Amino acid sequence: MADPVLYIGNKNYSSWSFRPWIGMRTAGIAFEEKLVPFDMAAGNPAFKTFSPTGKVPVLVDGDVTVWESLAILDHVARRHPESALWPEKPADRTMAMAMSSEMMSSFLALRSACPMNMRRERKQIETSRAVLADVARIQALWSQCLEKSGGPFLFGTFSIADAMYAPVINRLDVYAFETTPIVSGYMARMKELPAWREWETAGRAEPWIVDEDEA
Amino acid sequence: MADPVLYIGNKNYSSWSFRPWIGMRTAGIAFEEKLVPFDMAAGNPAFKTFSPTGKVPVLVDGDVTVWESLAILDHVARRHPESALWPEKPADRTMAMAMSSEMMSSFLALRSACPMNMRRERKQIETSRAVLADVARIQALWSQCLEKSGGPFLFGTFSIADAMYAPVINRLDVYAFETTPIVSGYMARMKELPAWREWETAGRAEPWIVDEDEA
Ligand SMILES: N[C@@H](CCC(=O)N[C@@H](CS)C(=O)NCC(=O)O)C(=O)O
Ligand SMILES: N[C@@H](CCC(=O)N[C@@H](CS)C(=O)NCC(=O)O)C(=O)O
Repeated sequence: MADPVLYIGNKNYSSWSFRPWIGMRTAGIAFEEKLVPFDMAAGNPAFKTFSPTGKVPVLVDGDVTVWESLAILDHVARRHPESALWPEKPADRTMAMAMSSEMMSSFLALRSACPMNMRRERKQIETSRAVLADVARIQALWSQCLEKSGGPFLFGTFSIADAMYAPVINRLDVYAFETTPIVSGYMARMKELPAWREWETAGRAEPWIVDEDEA
Repeated sequence: MADPVLYIGNKNYSSWSFRPWIGMRTAGIAFEEKLVPFDMAAGNPAFKTFSPTGKVPVLVDGDVTVWESLAILDHVARRHPESALWPEKPADRTMAMAMSSEMMSSFLALRSACPMNMRRERKQIETSRAVLADVARIQALWSQCLEKSGGPFLFGTFSIADAMYAPVINRLDVYAFETTPIVSGYMARMKELPAWREWETAGRAEPWIVDEDEA
């Protein structure tokens, strides 16, 4: 069977695209990448040709079309049990799913004030209390996981939870938030993943500048 | 082992609470309900005693605490495989997960303009284009599922997708949106579920009035 096709928007800014991409790449799951650049001004008409929501990412796997980053990761985890993309222990699996859901439904203050930006030079910006509360909650979650698992990743080996929070690692880094030692160590390990480096290098080399994402 | 404890906010308005409640009840999974009324003015301090996010719903299952409605449903589906809360066929399971994720991350226009309200008398309100677009997308999703499965529920038998969209069924109903016959039939079947009736009757009998949820 042909490899599934992962549609993404770009690598510098598209935080939702980054999640399944780094998850599948790190797990060694083969896929064909299709990068369809954003056309915000026109309402991204090209996305509507392959995406049921008009958003990226989308995975086309044979006759199944999967949208929503978490659903894509869950789909590939079920297709490739050997990848162990979900943590094995039931209690860890539950925690990973709760954290991943919280990522999807929450942290709007941080997400809108501090867009993911692989190219940005590390520099602090003025932030609201709501942004700092999001950052504190995220660090508390990561610390709880890392203290329990002992690392190197949230649940020991790399999992969907790491993939779902990957764009937040970039945000904490490039907007220079204060992080605790356990969190800083985790962020450094994530940024050393070959898949992270491959994505970052490609993102930095992209020509597109999205003004609204340059905070 | 003791039954898990499901914390909810109330039955008339708490749409996120409704999702795991109707899912577990319909699947016949025993649980103890703890209703902790909202105290919005004070920032819901009581929720912080049991909920890692300060929000409901939360499920406490032995030494595992699960937050986020979708994660609670996924947790009980794994603990009770006989409940078949996730559709069995891989492609259906993928679609159910994508739809449930979209419910969680999307439809903000509908969710904020038309709060769930079990007690409300059916009556139209002025709505924006964004609300109508949400309603159209939801009807398209349901129709696609029902045409493929033949009903009575989205994927044939009752699943997590039905539970995740249950509060939206109330919204389409009480704000009197126009619905197609296939969608109206599905909504009627959901509203006839014993669990739906039990929740609705209890919600209508509650004394609390939340002004901001009375659109
Ligand atoms: N909840 C979705 C979010 C997807 C999303 O918002 N994608 C953005 C790019 S990162 C997008 O496609 N925006 C284009 C648009 O809204 O027109 C997911 O997890 O995949
Ligand atoms: N994404 C969460 C949403 C939970 C949520 O927003 N719950 C509301 C009630 S329906 C809440 O607890 N609000 C209280 C607050 O924010 O203080 C889930 O799926 O469970």
